Amino acid sequence: MPASFDHTPSRWEKRAEQTLTRTRIFDLHSTYYYHPVRGTGRDFYVMHSPDWVNVVALTPERRMVLVRQFRFGIDDFSIEIPGGVMDHPGEDAVAAGLRELREETGYAGANARLLGRVHPNPAIMSNRCHLVLVEQCKRIAGPAWDADEEIEVTLASVDEVYEWARTGRITHSLVLDALLLLAPVWEKMRQQDPPPAHVN
Amino acid sequence: MPASFDHTPSRWEKRAEQTLTRTRIFDLHSTYYYHPVRGTGRDFYVMHSPDWVNVVALTPERRMVLVRQFRFGIDDFSIEIPGGVMDHPGEDAVAAGLRELREETGYAGANARLLGRVHPNPAIMSNRCHLVLVEQCKRIAGPAWDADEEIEVTLASVDEVYEWARTGRITHSLVLDALLLLAPVWEKMRQQDPPPAHVN
Repeated sequence: MPASFDHTPSRWEKRAEQTLTRTRIFDLHSTYYYHPVRGTGRDFYVMHSPDWVNVVALTPERRMVLVRQFRFGIDDFSIEIPGGVMDHPGEDAVAAGLRELREETGYAGANARLLGRVHPNPAIMSNRCHLVLVEQCKRIAGPAWDADEEIEVTLASVDEVYEWARTGRITHSLVLDALLLLAPVWEKMRQQDPPPAHVN
Repeated sequence: MPASFDHTPSRWEKRAEQTLTRTRIFDLHSTYYYHPVRGTGRDFYVMHSPDWVNVVALTPERRMVLVRQFRFGIDDFSIEIPGGVMDHPGEDAVAAGLRELREETGYAGANARLLGRVHPNPAIMSNRCHLVLVEQCKRIAGPAWDADEEIEVTLASVDEVYEWARTGRITHSLVLDALLLLAPVWEKMRQQDPPPAHVN
């Protein structure tokens, strides 16, 4: 650990757990944690959901595949990168990302790899979000939406996407995470192989 | 909107809302949404929480103030930037950030300003997270933790923090968002006024 001028916090001990609510997308648990030094404890709320995956999909012209859809949490539209929920705990994140990309946008690509993994909210959510990069993406089919999905697919240059993140046009925290982890990779890609001057 | 080759998604209409669970930190609602074109609708789950604020706090030596604490969501420790919950909807985000910085770490600073606002999760959460930058931060008091807080305060160089984000040592999505929005500001700060060669 880095140098510190404070004592080290204790690891709380999970003693009991009960499910308060089950929904299609997560279970809400009330979990009793005990502090071994303080000798006290209480219940904390934790949302348990499968891991999620979000995908940075680049076309041969180095444009990013974006999706725009109505989001019920904010009761408004949101511009994001494709993504979704892992099918099962053991599912490969890259495979899941390619599946979600195909289902939401009809795009498929090559050289798919993991950019990184983040925690959507370590305080109240137990799951992770896997961030995947796919290159050479082309639309090979129509989308295959879930019953409640209705998605507008959009292409934008990577520079445009970073500008939209800075100016608040893209606000989804996990999409911004993908852009942070993409930045050094994108810089290297641009140096090694500049985008073509004109679109094919 | 950017160019698109898809139809524009409809805006779903909120028709009814009920509270499934109330916790100290959020309420879970089941909200009935109606799709005006499809003529169908159903319930969606939305977590309603006050807005959050996270703070990038830099010392005169341009080191970032970090907090390490046990997080119940991931049942493990997490290295983050200071932050917390807004006291009330009308609270000024910068003032809230300075309050949380002071309470969690005992640090106060100058030239506090908003880096940006993000949505922690537009799909299932209604709230925003405000990201604040504070400079010239110094420890002026001891922390004033909430009953269940136990926080290790750490300083690290900004380069170290970005490295930890890239290598998965920092995984909190909202902390990574702050680093994305800080990047262009930090680049300008470094060009205009390079960090001192030695620490005061």
